[in-house]
Amino acid sequence: MSLTIPALAGKLAGLQSSAIRDLLKLTAREDIISLAGGLPDAALMPRERIARAAETALCDPAVLQYTESSGWPALREVIAARESAAIGRSVPVGEVFITHGSQQALSLLAEVLLDPGALVIVEDPAYVGALQVFRAAGARIVAVPLDSDGMRLDILEDLLAAGERPALVHTVSNFHNPGGVTLAPERRRRLAELAEAHGFWVIEDDPYGELWFDRPAPAPVASYSPQVIRLSSVSKILSPALRVGWMIAPERVSRAVELLKQGADLCGSSLTQQITTDLLTDTTWLAAHVDAIRTTYGTRARALTTALRTTFADRLHCTDPTGGMFIWAEFTDTTDTTALLPAALDAGVAYVPGGAFAVTNTADNSLRLCFTTSDEATLTAAVDRLSSAIG
Amino acid sequence: MSLTIPALAGKLAGLQSSAIRDLLKLTAREDIISLAGGLPDAALMPRERIARAAETALCDPAVLQYTESSGWPALREVIAARESAAIGRSVPVGEVFITHGSQQALSLLAEVLLDPGALVIVEDPAYVGALQVFRAAGARIVAVPLDSDGMRLDILEDLLAAGERPALVHTVSNFHNPGGVTLAPERRRRLAELAEAHGFWVIEDDPYGELWFDRPAPAPVASYSPQVIRLSSVSKILSPALRVGWMIAPERVSRAVELLKQGADLCGSSLTQQITTDLLTDTTWLAAHVDAIRTTYGTRARALTTALRTTFADRLHCTDPTGGMFIWAEFTDTTDTTALLPAALDAGVAYVPGGAFAVTNTADNSLRLCFTTSDEATLTAAVDRLSSAIG
Repeated sequence: MSLTIPALAGKLAGLQSSAIRDLLKLTAREDIISLAGGLPDAALMPRERIARAAETALCDPAVLQYTESSGWPALREVIAARESAAIGRSVPVGEVFITHGSQQALSLLAEVLLDPGALVIVEDPAYVGALQVFRAAGARIVAVPLDSDGMRLDILEDLLAAGERPALVHTVSNFHNPGGVTLAPERRRRLAELAEAHGFWVIEDDPYGELWFDRPAPAPVASYSPQVIRLSSVSKILSPALRVGWMIAPERVSRAVELLKQGADLCGSSLTQQITTDLLTDTTWLAAHVDAIRTTYGTRARALTTALRTTFADRLHCTDPTGGMFIWAEFTDTTDTTALLPAALDAGVAYVPGGAFAVTNTADNSLRLCFTTSDEATLTAAVDRLSSAIG
Repeated sequence: MSLTIPALAGKLAGLQSSAIRDLLKLTAREDIISLAGGLPDAALMPRERIARAAETALCDPAVLQYTESSGWPALREVIAARESAAIGRSVPVGEVFITHGSQQALSLLAEVLLDPGALVIVEDPAYVGALQVFRAAGARIVAVPLDSDGMRLDILEDLLAAGERPALVHTVSNFHNPGGVTLAPERRRRLAELAEAHGFWVIEDDPYGELWFDRPAPAPVASYSPQVIRLSSVSKILSPALRVGWMIAPERVSRAVELLKQGADLCGSSLTQQITTDLLTDTTWLAAHVDAIRTTYGTRARALTTALRTTFADRLHCTDPTGGMFIWAEFTDTTDTTALLPAALDAGVAYVPGGAFAVTNTADNSLRLCFTTSDEATLTAAVDRLSSAIG
């Protein structure tokens, strides 16, 4: 019999793997210090507390059953209370939707909010997980650069004045990945005003907000308008293996997301959502736990910036990390970070070239460094290796 | 300031909630015996064994970290071994892809395999979760009816002879939801031959295959051709809260699914995937555990069919359940099961009218009954209530 080989969908021709994820596969070598990852430190994750919560949760048969598509009811209540405090208004449970990590919220929202060809404004450099879903949704993407106060709203206003009509604006408001910066309070208010005046959605993507070092992050963009859909997760403060993220969105958006979630994967895990409920309601423990992460990451961030500035002086500008997991650095000479990477790997250090996150700007001289998973001595050694690679 | 309210995507206008899920919300009343659900019995799920596995898993910090998009490596190995035994060929790990329940496999496969307007063949009545994703993918859907041996391949062959060129054929091969029937071995072989001859994919959706009562299910459709993508999950034998499903597919399909999974939700839970690995490799325990479920469900299925036949005699035909979770029944008179439902709920019993699963046929006189979550006396009482509702 002659065989006819079936095809894959045509749109896959343009789909590429994330450059970062492919790179991560290369940098798993034991002899390489990787600052290329984007992972929280597993050693700081509360294994014993999670084991205790699992044991308690498993006394109830309901934690092993399917749950509602919108999430385990007890967790939605806890998130509603936490987000009410964060946003400064009473968030009803109907506006809380639990997702399989906040990446799933981005993915479902792209389907709910975007018609093909719709304009999406992203930051430059951008979170690549967001770029990927907006591209898959067939959006037209325009990037607005970051400065040390976050998204350049003057440029966004120029775009609006020129007649651009975005369907949504995506911002990582706190401790940007990869940019390292935080959106200034006055820009938060202005972004919300622009959203209401021009009828676009804002997605405030905030996985890192709790990881502040010296002072809490500013009030969320969502505190200025209900047109701001707020995303967060416990991946960076508890564990990504719980796969618990959430969105706070108007009920008509939440209901639309619910219909899509049914088709996407029916529902999340009652078990990991009840474990999360337990940990988030143990507020004394939680405060001490998150505080310990802040202290450790803050110490590591300072060690890395100190080493970078001592080693490279004016040859490299880097952000002043006030929280989160990343430093964004830029060579002030002609050093091309993509071209440098093979020599850096040979010298035993990995990073992500800025180009992996670039949308309009090329970011040829930039790089993203993650400080979360190495201690201070290792971070200092990594900078030495980077220096030797440059020669 | 005048506000401009932002819009949702236009395609949502046609999207509707699952009739079954909406109905489930109505039937949560304490005084109603619900045979409308599609849930495994939580009382049979191995809470203590899962708690023990969680405790062991949590000795390793890696179970709290992000994992690969394709799944926790140890679980992929275990599934490869199990599926090799089931399919009768050596399945490489590269063909195993772990998903967030098998619903996610359906959803990602629809994106990978279907261009808009592609023809998809489903069964009539159909699994509504599959219908939902194929419709969302913009497929043209044609239904082939079931008989007591599963999908009517003679009708599929007529369609092919008439020039129809499906991109894929979806079948729930074992203990069909909602149809209750199992695809006969000779039809499995023939379906695989047709797939190879005409160049279409088959999705063999098999969540219930392990839930056989008297004898194991026939060899999978996937044992006859690599063009058959096989889906299964632990939701019905361990717990849906683990959110562990999988697909066995050619590596080029798995790689395409991996790219989409990164955008959809990055990865699954290392924790629940390691718990699943532990339970699936504890083969002596697992065999006894699954055997206990089979015995209980088999007893319940027989109690329900006995009550139905005793009560309704020739007025109702029902399937002979040989496994799974459902009985499909059809009134031989003019009883309209959708019209009957309010009276049935008043009488204290819930079911799903056949129309909820109908694609081309109307199934006005049919209903789906789930026997998994009620004991024999309750099932008998449910049939009494149904009888009193008909009057």
